[in-house]
Amino acid sequence: MSDRAYALFEEQQKARGIHLDEVKASLKALKIETPSWGYGDSGTRFKVFQKEGVPRDPFEKFEDAAQVHGLTGLAPSVAIHIPWDKVDDYGKLRSHAESLGLSIGAVNPNLFQDEDYMLGSVTNASAAIRRKATDHLLECVDIAKETGSRDLSLWFADGTNYPGQGDIRRRKGWMFEALTEMYKAMTPDMRMLIEYKCFEPAFYHTDLADWGMAYNMALKLGPQAEVLVDTGHHLPGANIEHIVAYLLDEKRLGGFHFNSRKYADDDLIVGSINPYELFLIFYQILNAAGDADPAVRRNVANIAYMIDQSHNIEQKIPAMLRSVLNVQTQFAKALLINHAEVSAAAETGDVLGAEDAVRRAFEFDVTPLLHAVREEQGLPIEPMKAYLNSSYGKDILARGKGGASW
Amino acid sequence: MSDRAYALFEEQQKARGIHLDEVKASLKALKIETPSWGYGDSGTRFKVFQKEGVPRDPFEKFEDAAQVHGLTGLAPSVAIHIPWDKVDDYGKLRSHAESLGLSIGAVNPNLFQDEDYMLGSVTNASAAIRRKATDHLLECVDIAKETGSRDLSLWFADGTNYPGQGDIRRRKGWMFEALTEMYKAMTPDMRMLIEYKCFEPAFYHTDLADWGMAYNMALKLGPQAEVLVDTGHHLPGANIEHIVAYLLDEKRLGGFHFNSRKYADDDLIVGSINPYELFLIFYQILNAAGDADPAVRRNVANIAYMIDQSHNIEQKIPAMLRSVLNVQTQFAKALLINHAEVSAAAETGDVLGAEDAVRRAFEFDVTPLLHAVREEQGLPIEPMKAYLNSSYGKDILARGKGGASW
Amino acid sequence: MSDRAYALFEEQQKARGIHLDEVKASLKALKIETPSWGYGDSGTRFKVFQKEGVPRDPFEKFEDAAQVHGLTGLAPSVAIHIPWDKVDDYGKLRSHAESLGLSIGAVNPNLFQDEDYMLGSVTNASAAIRRKATDHLLECVDIAKETGSRDLSLWFADGTNYPGQGDIRRRKGWMFEALTEMYKAMTPDMRMLIEYKCFEPAFYHTDLADWGMAYNMALKLGPQAEVLVDTGHHLPGANIEHIVAYLLDEKRLGGFHFNSRKYADDDLIVGSINPYELFLIFYQILNAAGDADPAVRRNVANIAYMIDQSHNIEQKIPAMLRSVLNVQTQFAKALLINHAEVSAAAETGDVLGAEDAVRRAFEFDVTPLLHAVREEQGLPIEPMKAYLNSSYGKDILARGKGGASW
Amino acid sequence: MSDRAYALFEEQQKARGIHLDEVKASLKALKIETPSWGYGDSGTRFKVFQKEGVPRDPFEKFEDAAQVHGLTGLAPSVAIHIPWDKVDDYGKLRSHAESLGLSIGAVNPNLFQDEDYMLGSVTNASAAIRRKATDHLLECVDIAKETGSRDLSLWFADGTNYPGQGDIRRRKGWMFEALTEMYKAMTPDMRMLIEYKCFEPAFYHTDLADWGMAYNMALKLGPQAEVLVDTGHHLPGANIEHIVAYLLDEKRLGGFHFNSRKYADDDLIVGSINPYELFLIFYQILNAAGDADPAVRRNVANIAYMIDQSHNIEQKIPAMLRSVLNVQTQFAKALLINHAEVSAAAETGDVLGAEDAVRRAFEFDVTPLLHAVREEQGLPIEPMKAYLNSSYGKDILARGKGGASW
Repeated sequence: MSDRAYALFEEQQKARGIHLDEVKASLKALKIETPSWGYGDSGTRFKVFQKEGVPRDPFEKFEDAAQVHGLTGLAPSVAIHIPWDKVDDYGKLRSHAESLGLSIGAVNPNLFQDEDYMLGSVTNASAAIRRKATDHLLECVDIAKETGSRDLSLWFADGTNYPGQGDIRRRKGWMFEALTEMYKAMTPDMRMLIEYKCFEPAFYHTDLADWGMAYNMALKLGPQAEVLVDTGHHLPGANIEHIVAYLLDEKRLGGFHFNSRKYADDDLIVGSINPYELFLIFYQILNAAGDADPAVRRNVANIAYMIDQSHNIEQKIPAMLRSVLNVQTQFAKALLINHAEVSAAAETGDVLGAEDAVRRAFEFDVTPLLHAVREEQGLPIEPMKAYLNSSYGKDILARGKGGASW
Repeated sequence: MSDRAYALFEEQQKARGIHLDEVKASLKALKIETPSWGYGDSGTRFKVFQKEGVPRDPFEKFEDAAQVHGLTGLAPSVAIHIPWDKVDDYGKLRSHAESLGLSIGAVNPNLFQDEDYMLGSVTNASAAIRRKATDHLLECVDIAKETGSRDLSLWFADGTNYPGQGDIRRRKGWMFEALTEMYKAMTPDMRMLIEYKCFEPAFYHTDLADWGMAYNMALKLGPQAEVLVDTGHHLPGANIEHIVAYLLDEKRLGGFHFNSRKYADDDLIVGSINPYELFLIFYQILNAAGDADPAVRRNVANIAYMIDQSHNIEQKIPAMLRSVLNVQTQFAKALLINHAEVSAAAETGDVLGAEDAVRRAFEFDVTPLLHAVREEQGLPIEPMKAYLNSSYGKDILARGKGGASW
Repeated sequence: MSDRAYALFEEQQKARGIHLDEVKASLKALKIETPSWGYGDSGTRFKVFQKEGVPRDPFEKFEDAAQVHGLTGLAPSVAIHIPWDKVDDYGKLRSHAESLGLSIGAVNPNLFQDEDYMLGSVTNASAAIRRKATDHLLECVDIAKETGSRDLSLWFADGTNYPGQGDIRRRKGWMFEALTEMYKAMTPDMRMLIEYKCFEPAFYHTDLADWGMAYNMALKLGPQAEVLVDTGHHLPGANIEHIVAYLLDEKRLGGFHFNSRKYADDDLIVGSINPYELFLIFYQILNAAGDADPAVRRNVANIAYMIDQSHNIEQKIPAMLRSVLNVQTQFAKALLINHAEVSAAAETGDVLGAEDAVRRAFEFDVTPLLHAVREEQGLPIEPMKAYLNSSYGKDILARGKGGASW
Repeated sequence: MSDRAYALFEEQQKARGIHLDEVKASLKALKIETPSWGYGDSGTRFKVFQKEGVPRDPFEKFEDAAQVHGLTGLAPSVAIHIPWDKVDDYGKLRSHAESLGLSIGAVNPNLFQDEDYMLGSVTNASAAIRRKATDHLLECVDIAKETGSRDLSLWFADGTNYPGQGDIRRRKGWMFEALTEMYKAMTPDMRMLIEYKCFEPAFYHTDLADWGMAYNMALKLGPQAEVLVDTGHHLPGANIEHIVAYLLDEKRLGGFHFNSRKYADDDLIVGSINPYELFLIFYQILNAAGDADPAVRRNVANIAYMIDQSHNIEQKIPAMLRSVLNVQTQFAKALLINHAEVSAAAETGDVLGAEDAVRRAFEFDVTPLLHAVREEQGLPIEPMKAYLNSSYGKDILARGKGGASW
């Protein structure tokens, strides 16, 4: 059935002017970084439920991540989080990763779980605490050197809960000071990815609250600083694909933290709540991929796609498989957009025609295409089924409960 | 200065037709329940910061609560949470409370911190888990008998994170079954307060998501079931005072969990983010207090005012003092509304006049009034200052860190 | 290609336990009412752009609506709006409709465009204006008798812009009085559909602001009153499918006004902004369609599906075609859900499996199925293309600009 | 009573370290521009209700505006809107204004009410329409030369309703082209104020959707381009005062369009829905007014405070009086903040102390202060009462209905 389905699909697409060879090449080039913390326990402020079999140390996290990559071919790198993934010998961790076919991805400093940081880390009113926080940033640059990581991915929980609690503009200055010091410590091949978030854990103001603030910082720091878009970090209604397009046009889109939200920063599996939004993000990216300006195309080529979710109630490895597969699915659909058709309609004011040209790509079932790609890559046709049929999930139960968690 | 201020204030109000004797009587009758958990550590999913001096057991929580009541005269009862406040002998806890001039208020079951409840408590697909959860509800009825509590305050974290995860209508049926069983176990003088919440910790659907669902349950259960409004549990823009007025008109408003929100369920100090909203809630209540229907007036008289917040970064006792004082302030302002003036303008279509008649009451500085009331009650004029000048806050530091927390 | 595609599709679905005969029967039974006003000009407060060719009177509106039904077989009835569709002889309008293969659907009173209603219609503080508004409701009952309409669809713009402007509880009482009077005037086969809306055009409080208020009114009125869900009338994040499921379980879901929203009541084409949400609504409906309780199944059978949108910039007839086709598409996808598979996963706590079982149905391309259904019904395979290739769109340009509008 | 009240108030403030001489000087310097369109009829998409007595031409609008300024001393300039305020001879309009003690303020181009602009003005896919729109911008620069206006205030309704309808990045480029051409036409003393809005009338994407986009444009244009903050143009929960502080720190805050929102861009009277937010905006401005950097102080000094509201149901002149008075009230309260006290608390991590120092200023009743200021300025103590007691409101009824409106 699979062959017939693919033949039919190819025929359909060809008739629309979509050549599957290019589509398949793009699909094979898609890389999605998974986060080490996504393999451990996480939860809400009300409760962290503990699962049996979660990894007990960074090495086991990479082993789980290797399952995801081995079955999908999509996730060759793993982001680490310091100090959660602190080890004595990063060379050893790197070798371990490489032996599993993986590399170490973005290094993520943690500046929100030390008692000192209750009222801020790099924006704390205490110079000593700011020093400590900035030192941690510098430490992460050093770790990135050891792990061979290109990206330093920065999210700050810093903010205030009440008016008056902190001086917003002074805190802004302190933020810039710390970022400047870190920026100078980076090697020329490194990138600083600056994440923003509208709220949580700060509930009145967050020092880097929206893309404009992250962009402003990046602009003042220099060309190695870019903006990181977490799909869950926006106010209700925000048009994320617009922000993505805008940043690409300014050549400052560093990458994504993918996840789904319905209400706040829900951190659900990407593509599970509003899959069309994910598709529309890829539509903007692919539109920019064809830009006349080589700098825009270069930005597209360097986007870091990363998962960042909380699997509070899900099985961890299946949740990560589902996540990268959902990204692949929407990316595949976006590859079926006939941009010339959209433009032709848009330019003549044919609103319904232009909308249809975008939405229609979304309505195709890309299963035959994805099966074909996986077959060509020597991967299981159905990665989730392959995982569930394997013994890995049962074997790791021996790890017991109480593994890594926030 | 204080006397002159009061004299002037009284003169002003008299000129507007507001008699301070009645206002003062209303202020003296105001009672706000504080929650035992508000004296312990709380936090966000990212971190619970630990404070020195937080109470180590339920008995110490009541001691701290006695400070709040002793200094303000506003908080004579304390809500308890089971199992956080589980003790061997509730009689002993009750005596302890009474010896401090307090009573035990609402009993709050906890159905969200047991590993069994990951996918729901009373709405879990497992009959055994539903049984266990319902038994806990029944246990709380028994505890309420021992503590002499009138109110059983029910918040369920139950819900789902993904479409399909649970059958929404079956879960609704299970919810009703559990509530029915609990309702039948209550004594005739008890009340069931049913709380709703739009989201968190469930991020796709919450079994009791809005006031309509809580009201529907209450209606089917019987007259001892009422709706509990938590001011933080609404979607952006919700007009809470409208819901309050609606429920009062249907005689089903059980009470409040007060706190402030700017984004999600931020659980900040009540009155700190949008004090006018709190004032407008009291405006609706006081409007209903003058209703022709005695059932509406009876509902007003029986509203349970309760604080429910997370003091993540604040000193606990001062945070609770600030909370009850903020409620008192806005209640005092609302008492200055001249309802006849509002009505007269509203009835003639004088939009600006009616709005002004409400807002003007908010703009008065009620400090002289509150000072006078406290003086008459033999309380410190400035409760916060009195607390900060006392040794209590220093004395409890001896408790060290690591006291009660979620 | 079409035949092969269908054969393959059928094979796939059979393998999943989905029988296309039943699916096709359900698709053929789907009826979506279009609104007469959707064929005319509409706009925002900033501007109503005028299109050439919009109908100049109710008769022409029915002619346009006949195009939509003729090409899709989906839209056999047309909702009318009084006074926009006021005619001297409703019998004549009814005959006209019937001659076009249409019937007259819900009658919608208009209580927001008379100068008298600036501060409310049925909730106005003036008894005379309330009387006038209630008389209009009664007039609509009379019109429904003449048009043979079953449904009276009620949306009230009534509300206030400022605190104090109106007495919320008195207005609630007046609302109930007017509805009661109308309810009593209805014949036993009529239904009152009560719509709610969180805001606009009232910006502080709206008398019927959420489903709970509409439900409360319906409950007190009697069994012929039900709740009408407009998909655009909710606060950000509201889980509409949950409300739908809840109302079905209470047997009080009257119907839908379909449209899409991203921000406020944007009134965009249904299924164009978040198609998954529309699919999930149908998932809840189809879940209830299999309920053990015949009253629930009866409610499902009587749901009125209606379009209610503002085609501000779109060609009117194509916009309506797109709308009913989008509804059909998502309904078709929802028909592919294997409910037993979802339940089996949900009952064993397999969160990811249950989610997958729902989402997978959404990912199928239902084009072959819809083509087959249309072929069997003797309809054009691609209704939009058929319309665009017809001369109708050009012919109506002779109507010129300045046709019907709000 | 008034004198005693002021004496007491002065004493109180002095004790807190607040010197009323400076406060009064600041209050006397406050200038709030009113918009010509705020004196005419406006409405929602559902209905524009017509009031008797609204001005019939730009000259009468200035006469009404003169009432507001004459009674409050707060509103010496009036923003005009082209083409609503198009006149043959702007010199004559200017003389008329000056004869009334007014000046002509910001010039606002209108690019949303021409049939050509349905799919965009400066971002329209048609070069001819873009040319027409840009010419209108240039025309407004010319008008500003004639009227002696410093500010060109730009709001674009441009955006799309559906994915694909327009190429987001190309539209961004066209926006920048048009602004560049206009920027070059400005004289060195002119300013371009760039407004942003999250949605409406475009419901999918708006070309300038948030402050970051407006800031990005301003930065690339040059120092005469600044960002205009409309308080109603933000997504739910946005911390506007944070954006204000951020822009001041970057020296790019051009000014405000003041109004209130609860849901969307409700355009209600400023300070009527959440007065504390308005106070907190002024808190940030006054904090920046004391900055060490002269460029920041200069930015504060040049902020254009403007009203921009829709008085759909209110009497127009009283609505404007209420608006400027509400701004004055919150500004006065913010002037009572003891910044040193806030800082001292904030720097030592005294969260509650810092919050209290801000909120306390809000709780003062500034009536005695405002009365004193008005008395010193030779203004009526109670401007609203003075207006209502005057004959102006009755006299203008002779204008009849059907005056200026959108």
